[in-house]
Amino acid sequence: MDTHALIRQLVQKNDSKIVMYVADGLGGLPQKPGGKTELETASTPNLDKLAAEGVCGGSIPVAPGIAPGSGPGHLGLFGYDPVEFLIGRGALEATGIGFKLEEGDVAIRANFCTLDSDGNIADRRAGRIPTEESTPIVERLAKEVSISGIETVILPVKEHRFVIVLRGDGLVGNVDDTDPQATGVPPLNPAARDDASQKTAEVCSQLLEQVRKLLADEAKANFCTLRGITGKPSIPSFEEVYGLHAAAIAVYPMYKGLANLVGMDIIGEAQTLDEQMEVLKSVWDKYDFFFIHFKYTDSTGEDGNFDAKVKRTEEYDAAVPAIMELGPDVFIATGDHSTPSMLASHSWHSVPTLLWAENCRCDPATSFGESQCLTGGLGQFEAKHLMTLALANAGRLGKFGA
Amino acid sequence: MDTHALIRQLVQKNDSKIVMYVADGLGGLPQKPGGKTELETASTPNLDKLAAEGVCGGSIPVAPGIAPGSGPGHLGLFGYDPVEFLIGRGALEATGIGFKLEEGDVAIRANFCTLDSDGNIADRRAGRIPTEESTPIVERLAKEVSISGIETVILPVKEHRFVIVLRGDGLVGNVDDTDPQATGVPPLNPAARDDASQKTAEVCSQLLEQVRKLLADEAKANFCTLRGITGKPSIPSFEEVYGLHAAAIAVYPMYKGLANLVGMDIIGEAQTLDEQMEVLKSVWDKYDFFFIHFKYTDSTGEDGNFDAKVKRTEEYDAAVPAIMELGPDVFIATGDHSTPSMLASHSWHSVPTLLWAENCRCDPATSFGESQCLTGGLGQFEAKHLMTLALANAGRLGKFGA
Repeated sequence: MDTHALIRQLVQKNDSKIVMYVADGLGGLPQKPGGKTELETASTPNLDKLAAEGVCGGSIPVAPGIAPGSGPGHLGLFGYDPVEFLIGRGALEATGIGFKLEEGDVAIRANFCTLDSDGNIADRRAGRIPTEESTPIVERLAKEVSISGIETVILPVKEHRFVIVLRGDGLVGNVDDTDPQATGVPPLNPAARDDASQKTAEVCSQLLEQVRKLLADEAKANFCTLRGITGKPSIPSFEEVYGLHAAAIAVYPMYKGLANLVGMDIIGEAQTLDEQMEVLKSVWDKYDFFFIHFKYTDSTGEDGNFDAKVKRTEEYDAAVPAIMELGPDVFIATGDHSTPSMLASHSWHSVPTLLWAENCRCDPATSFGESQCLTGGLGQFEAKHLMTLALANAGRLGKFGA
Repeated sequence: MDTHALIRQLVQKNDSKIVMYVADGLGGLPQKPGGKTELETASTPNLDKLAAEGVCGGSIPVAPGIAPGSGPGHLGLFGYDPVEFLIGRGALEATGIGFKLEEGDVAIRANFCTLDSDGNIADRRAGRIPTEESTPIVERLAKEVSISGIETVILPVKEHRFVIVLRGDGLVGNVDDTDPQATGVPPLNPAARDDASQKTAEVCSQLLEQVRKLLADEAKANFCTLRGITGKPSIPSFEEVYGLHAAAIAVYPMYKGLANLVGMDIIGEAQTLDEQMEVLKSVWDKYDFFFIHFKYTDSTGEDGNFDAKVKRTEEYDAAVPAIMELGPDVFIATGDHSTPSMLASHSWHSVPTLLWAENCRCDPATSFGESQCLTGGLGQFEAKHLMTLALANAGRLGKFGA
């Protein structure tokens, strides 16, 4: 079923406000079977109160057993089937450093590599060259590379990784990687996968030729490979699909970038949750939908630090009253995936989710945690349905059929 | 997955009896968060006993967040994906007044309108002309309109609304609406959306020409617009897909019509639940499947009358023993959607559902209500799967694969 086609038919506007408050990697695991997860260990009086008044459930980011990255995790929360709407690696890398891709851009993830004297790859990551060494090299490329009729944007990321964006007429991003995924062989030439991408492949070849000359004297980073040569993903906007004027209030570039891909306005320069709440308050009257992103439940989980994740979860909870005093019609607390500190990585486990709204049909859950979410009224559901539920609870969907 | 294709492969006949007992709009909401819904407030000893012996769950009519009309709501219960099997507005309107569409018919919802002296629409609904005024006009049209080679059936509905059915060779229902959705402009001419519908568009033009002349002297209803010009939906029958000889025992034309679209026999002229139960008993030996429809849980919900819905739910429960004493192999109690009296409208909330059968795998639910259904053995499931569960519990499905 094409849920978006259905929603477009049914959407009706009103003056309701929806808040989606995302704790990255929220779901967790107990330290021992039968114990409490990070969320269940944390003291979260504000979320517990909303869980008692609202409805809970377990959100499955993509499909049972699938652990998503930030891209598919957030696309699911935003109501886009994360298997249908794919963000190419180049586009995600550019998005991740906050670059705003435009229609027709082609984004590339580039890796510095080391070529030996025969032109074969000796090190695919240029000895994982430190960021402080790689950044000046990227800046030099940004200054020197020049391709007729094409604007090139070259930006550092971290260590051996950087981003190239090509902007110009007739560029289509369907070109093979040039990384041969092996050493002792030369890099591959950029090969178009379709006729429409021929020009992009030629531009990539010119670019690589210039890079080879410019970096010839570098000890480690004397060349680069190109990966994930992709255009801006074609994703209908929040305004188009849901009729929502949406704002994103995030700290990290990746999440601003993801929100931007679905057409949200990126608001403010907040660096802390308190500052995010100030930004929220300042634009409350101007938007219908607010995506607020909190990173540290994920990063502490990735660090494998159970206690730190508990503490960060408590910070996440402590900011809830600042949202609720603004009077949202629909409040959702969830995560884009689980990041159990016991695994120190993203996982496939369902994500505790609560939806609070006047007519949400309150369930028996009395606090917010993985176990209580199992018997919640939202059941175990695919994340992509959450936006439909948000719209319904906000009175923004008409009846389907007579 | 095409569930119907799978079921067709696996169906095996036996002499089991399945009863689907539908309380329209059954699901509800508490008057205050944490309170009891209409169903939970009602005294329903018969359904509670079956819930304790059977298996419960929450049926999602279409998809999370989607509130369906009666058409998609019932198609889901009957095991047809309500987004795949769409009933056009004309076909639904004809069905709703109990008209039995045949293959090749084209059904149209017509609205009386008022044209000004320039032929522009002054009122799209002819001042919502009362039914007692519009019915004689419809009857006159039914008598006077005559199109060579085409049988026209013209039937009153209510106020400015009536139904036109065209019957004849070569008619296909894919013609644009003639209602311009605005006043001060003339009605649109019927335009075919494909070559196959050219003849239908021409017939509609002839019909409108005659209507214009016949109604020229009417004060309000001096013309009409045509909407939802559609054929009988192509829906495989219960017999074809499930191998079930099915009977519908309903009071209201809409539900008889919907059952007729999936090939059920419409049995009896019952006006009350007691009469429906008498009809059921009288045809018990003749059918495999019985759809029994109870309307008033929906209409009281639509009226926003919590107490009346509670009372109607008790009536629904009180008729259960009359069904059970006939000895069905599978008994299902459910609704086509929720109609919480707090919302006074159809809603998206899951619908309490119970399935009783000898080998259903009884769950811990001890009474029939929204909260207990959350932890029931059927989980939260899409309504379209209910028929497969009914067939399985009736021993009517063989094993898939070796």
